[in-house]
Amino acid sequence: MQLMYSATSPYVRKVMIVAQELGLLPRIERLPCAASPVQLDTALAAVNPLAKVPALVLDDGTVLFDSPVICEYLASLQTGQAIFPENGPARWRALRDQALGDGILDAALLVRYESMVRPEMYRWDEWRTGQMAKITRTLDLLETEAAGYDERADIGTIALACALSYLDFRYADLGWRDGRTQLAGWFATFWQREPVQAVMKIQASA
Amino acid sequence: MQLMYSATSPYVRKVMIVAQELGLLPRIERLPCAASPVQLDTALAAVNPLAKVPALVLDDGTVLFDSPVICEYLASLQTGQAIFPENGPARWRALRDQALGDGILDAALLVRYESMVRPEMYRWDEWRTGQMAKITRTLDLLETEAAGYDERADIGTIALACALSYLDFRYADLGWRDGRTQLAGWFATFWQREPVQAVMKIQASA
Repeated sequence: MQLMYSATSPYVRKVMIVAQELGLLPRIERLPCAASPVQLDTALAAVNPLAKVPALVLDDGTVLFDSPVICEYLASLQTGQAIFPENGPARWRALRDQALGDGILDAALLVRYESMVRPEMYRWDEWRTGQMAKITRTLDLLETEAAGYDERADIGTIALACALSYLDFRYADLGWRDGRTQLAGWFATFWQREPVQAVMKIQASA
Repeated sequence: MQLMYSATSPYVRKVMIVAQELGLLPRIERLPCAASPVQLDTALAAVNPLAKVPALVLDDGTVLFDSPVICEYLASLQTGQAIFPENGPARWRALRDQALGDGILDAALLVRYESMVRPEMYRWDEWRTGQMAKITRTLDLLETEAAGYDERADIGTIALACALSYLDFRYADLGWRDGRTQLAGWFATFWQREPVQAVMKIQASA
């Protein structure tokens, strides 16, 4: 399998961690891409017309995206996996938490495009404020729920951890841990998981 | 169940059609919201910190989002449903097609915010161009695949049809049917399905 890859994409990181949790990472070749909302990577657009990473090219040429689809596909390759719980409350909790993690990232990416890609004269403060408020409200909700994450290592907690690590990477000034000790404590432990650290090591070296 | 609702949201329409296909629409109460990237609907934010529609409030107070999660949850309530195929190629095709449909919508919404919500002085043509190119490339891909949709009425084709209907609603000038006769023909037939027309009738009256 080939993964349309970017070392700085948090959605790619989610796929990488899921693959490592499932023991599938050695089967995935990484193809570096330069995804951008305004500059086209033609190789990427040739496999995903939305020109977004991640996209997974299967050995038969089938292309899967977006990241939730890729993650669930990878999980389907391993029987007895726990990343995507079977039908029932655990599944809906995991998928809803993935939506919260990806939702933080969607907002964070939009703010980054606004602040770093868009020419300064076209930036609009209310847009930035609106997106950042989505992030703050979601973090506040997570703080009330983090004590219940226990030992969960499913697509929900993986997505949330990837979102928090992206905030550390791009929004250190936000200080997301301030007043959110439950969430900060959970993240510190979760991020030490062996599969997470294995992916971080790979991404630090390439 | 209560659905945080907007009559103009294409993601809400997708949920409505899925619910009607499954015979579940009578069990869903609609709560109108005013989702906006810059003006907060506090009732919506109270159930979904991302302040986006759709969100589904279950009878036990559990809240599900985003639209793919809600749709899959609804499908899980009906045995023998075909909206979310079981594990296998049909499932990945359906989920990938949903990602294409939702990807068209994500781009179309960003262009709409750029063109209608953002003050004129802050609009940036390259942003609009980049997002519209995602839509155009995806439509071109769909044209090559539409002949293979056959009688499929799964989450993939429903999402694609909702995306096309949104282009008719907000981007009639785009002329998406020009040069895409396969896709246009498929959409014309699909949109006449009874569950789709039932939802359109409800949405026209409220």
